[in-house]
Amino acid sequence: MADTTLRFNPIAASLEPSPIRELFKVISQPGMISFAGGLPAPDAFPVEAFADCAEVLRTNGRIVLQYGASEGYGPLREILLERMTEFLGFEVKPGQLLVTSGAQQVVDLMARALLEPGDVVVVEAPTYPGTLHTLRMAGARFAAVPCDRGGLRVDELPGVVDRVIEETGRRPKLVYTVPDFSNPTGATLAADRRARLVELASELELPVLEDDPYSRLRYAGEPLPPLARLGGDDGPVVYASSFSKVLAPGVRVAWVVGPPQLIRTMTLLRQGADLCTSTVTQALVAEYCRRGHLDRHLAHILDVYATRRDAMLEAMDRRLDRSTVDWHPPDGGFFVWARFTDRTADAAFERAVAEGVAFVPGGAFHPGAGEQVGEPVTGPDRARLCFTFADAAAIDEGCRRLAHALR
Amino acid sequence: MADTTLRFNPIAASLEPSPIRELFKVISQPGMISFAGGLPAPDAFPVEAFADCAEVLRTNGRIVLQYGASEGYGPLREILLERMTEFLGFEVKPGQLLVTSGAQQVVDLMARALLEPGDVVVVEAPTYPGTLHTLRMAGARFAAVPCDRGGLRVDELPGVVDRVIEETGRRPKLVYTVPDFSNPTGATLAADRRARLVELASELELPVLEDDPYSRLRYAGEPLPPLARLGGDDGPVVYASSFSKVLAPGVRVAWVVGPPQLIRTMTLLRQGADLCTSTVTQALVAEYCRRGHLDRHLAHILDVYATRRDAMLEAMDRRLDRSTVDWHPPDGGFFVWARFTDRTADAAFERAVAEGVAFVPGGAFHPGAGEQVGEPVTGPDRARLCFTFADAAAIDEGCRRLAHALR
Repeated sequence: MADTTLRFNPIAASLEPSPIRELFKVISQPGMISFAGGLPAPDAFPVEAFADCAEVLRTNGRIVLQYGASEGYGPLREILLERMTEFLGFEVKPGQLLVTSGAQQVVDLMARALLEPGDVVVVEAPTYPGTLHTLRMAGARFAAVPCDRGGLRVDELPGVVDRVIEETGRRPKLVYTVPDFSNPTGATLAADRRARLVELASELELPVLEDDPYSRLRYAGEPLPPLARLGGDDGPVVYASSFSKVLAPGVRVAWVVGPPQLIRTMTLLRQGADLCTSTVTQALVAEYCRRGHLDRHLAHILDVYATRRDAMLEAMDRRLDRSTVDWHPPDGGFFVWARFTDRTADAAFERAVAEGVAFVPGGAFHPGAGEQVGEPVTGPDRARLCFTFADAAAIDEGCRRLAHALR
Repeated sequence: MADTTLRFNPIAASLEPSPIRELFKVISQPGMISFAGGLPAPDAFPVEAFADCAEVLRTNGRIVLQYGASEGYGPLREILLERMTEFLGFEVKPGQLLVTSGAQQVVDLMARALLEPGDVVVVEAPTYPGTLHTLRMAGARFAAVPCDRGGLRVDELPGVVDRVIEETGRRPKLVYTVPDFSNPTGATLAADRRARLVELASELELPVLEDDPYSRLRYAGEPLPPLARLGGDDGPVVYASSFSKVLAPGVRVAWVVGPPQLIRTMTLLRQGADLCTSTVTQALVAEYCRRGHLDRHLAHILDVYATRRDAMLEAMDRRLDRSTVDWHPPDGGFFVWARFTDRTADAAFERAVAEGVAFVPGGAFHPGAGEQVGEPVTGPDRARLCFTFADAAAIDEGCRRLAHALR
C-alpha cells in the first residue's frame, strides 16, 4: 500500500513504542541478567495444575468454545462476585462487574468511556508507563502528583486539581493509582492517605481508578483496606484487578468493579473492542479457582517472591555502596525503586548493561514534559529493579555486576 | 458513585446496545428455534481434539503462561505467515502480520489508527452490525453502497465517494467489505467486481478492509481470489480473518495482514488496548494446527454446514409460500437472506416469535439515517436466517413455524 493511502489520525501517528519495550532490544543479549521486565517468575507458574484444568475444555467444550457473554463467563463471574464482595466489604452485584482481557483493557475502556482529547488524568509520579500509553490513545494529558515512601502525596492532590482547572478550564476526569506496591516504586499508600484520598475524590467528584495487581503479594506488614472498600458501594472508586500476577499473565483475564452505569458503558465499548474475553481462558481460570488451586498457589508464590525480595535486599545491602545508590525495602509486589546519588539513571544503565545487568531507568515512568499540565515531576536519578523474575543466584550475580558498574 | 461524578464522553454516552443483542432478550425462551444468532454449531466443535492440544500447556507452560509479544505467539505466527503467503499469493513478511483478539479487534484497531470523529467509512448495505458499532466508537459516519446477489455494487462506489467528498469535504477513510458469503446477505462478490474494486481503491487511494471469516466455508461453486491477492503486496487491501468460524469463537484468535506501517501502528494501539492476545489460546490454536486438525475439521464442518444449508433451503422451498417470501441459495457461509413481499420484517418477526421461531429483521444491518452520508440504503423487508446453529430437524420445524407465522 502506498504511504499516501494511509492517513493515520494525529493521535495514532504520534504514538511511540514504549521506552521499556525499546529497552528490551538493548538488553536481550545472552548472559544478561535482567531486573528490567516486570514479569512473574516462569519457574513458579503452576504449570501442572493449570494444564490439568484443561479437563474443563473436554467436559464443557460446547460452551467454552462458543462466543461468550461480553460481561464474562458465568462460572468465573460467580467466583469473582463472591471474592469481591468479601474483599470490598459490600455486596458486589452482577451489574457492577465486567471481566476484561487483562487490566490494561480496564484502563482502555475507562479512557474510552470518559475521556475527550485534551482531558486531564491525574497520575502518580512515577507511574506505570503502560497506563500512560493507553491514556494517550484517548488523547489524555497528565497532571502528576508526587509520590514518596507512603505512596501518592494525597495532600498535594487539591492543589494539582486546582492547577488543572486553572490551566485548562476543565476538571480532571480521573485519578489513576496503584495504591499497593506501586509499579515502579513498590510503595504502598499509607492508611491515613487512603481515607483522605477517598474523601477528597468524593468532594471533588473525581473518579479514582484503583489498579490492584499486587496487593495479594505482600511479604511483610499488614494489609491495608483497598480504596474501593473505604469508598463503599456508592463511592468514587473503580476497582480493577487481574489474574496476571497471582496466576499467570498468559491467560489475559482481569476484571473491574464499578458503578452499574460505568460498567454498562464499558461493556458496550468492549463489545466493539473484542466482543468478549476468551471463554477458553476464562473457563480454565474458573476451573483453577474452583479446584482451590488459587489460594494454594498464592501461598507458594508468596514464599518464592519473599525469598527473592530478601535475596535482592541482602545482595544490594552487601554489594552496593550506599553513598552512590539508595533504596527502601518494599513490603510486597515486584519492585525495588532505587536512587543514584552521583549520576543519572541513564548513565548508570549504560554502564550496567556493559557489565551484563539491566534495570529500567526512571524516566520511563513519567509522562513527557509536553503532555503534562501543571508542575511536571521527573526522576532522572531513579531506577526500577524487578526481583521476581530472576532466581536468587542470578539476583546475587546481578547485584555484583551492578556494584561493579557503579564503582 | 454519584451519577454526576461520571462524565462520559459524547461518543460513549451515545452508544446503544446492539439491536441483535436486544433481540436475544426477546427470543431466549424455552422451545424457541433460533435462526437469529450468527453462531457456529456447538455440536460440531472439535471438543476432544482441541482438549487434547492442552498438552501444550504442560510441555510449554512456562512460555504460554507468560506475557506474550503484542505481535502474536511465535509458533502461531509462523503457521499464519506460511498459510497467508500461500493464500494471498505473495510473501507475507513478519512485519505485515498481527495476531488479534478476534477480528472485531482488527476493525477496532484500524478505526483507531485511521479515523477522526466525523470521518466517513464506506460500508456495504446491508453489513455486519458489529462493525458499525466498532466504527461508531471512533466517531465514524457511514456511506452505504448497495449490494445485490453479486455483492457490493462496485459500479456505485465512485459516485458514493464523490458524494461523501461533496457533502463532508473529506475523502472517506476506508471501505469495509465481507466479499465472501457476506453477513447478512450470504452473497459473494463477483469476480469482475473484485478486480474493479481493487483497481478503484488504488485509483482513489482508499484502503479496503477485507473481512474474511467465511471464505473457507464454501459449499458450492468455485473459490474466488481474495481482494488482497488481487491487490498484491503493495495493494490497497488489508486482509483480516479469524479462527472463530473454522475452529471456535471461544479462542478469540484472529489476524490481520497489511502494510508494515499500518501493522506497526495497530501493534502500538493493541499494546494499549490489551497488551497481547492470550498466549494460552494462541498456543492451543497453534498446536491444533500443528497436529493437522484444522484441515480435517474444516472438511467435517463443510459437510455439516452444507447439509444444514441444504436442509434449510429444502424446508424453505417446501414450506414457505414464494409469493410472500423470497430468497436466493447462498454458496457458503452462515446465512440465507430473505425478502418479505407483503409485510415488513419487523411485522414478520413479531408473528414468527409468537410461533416459536426467530430470525434477525434487516434493519439491524444498516446504519441509522442520522449517521449516514449520501443516499441511505435500508432494508425493512429483509431478514437474516442463520442455518449453521440449529440441526436439520430443528431447521425443518423452524421453517414449519415460519410458514405458519407468515400465513
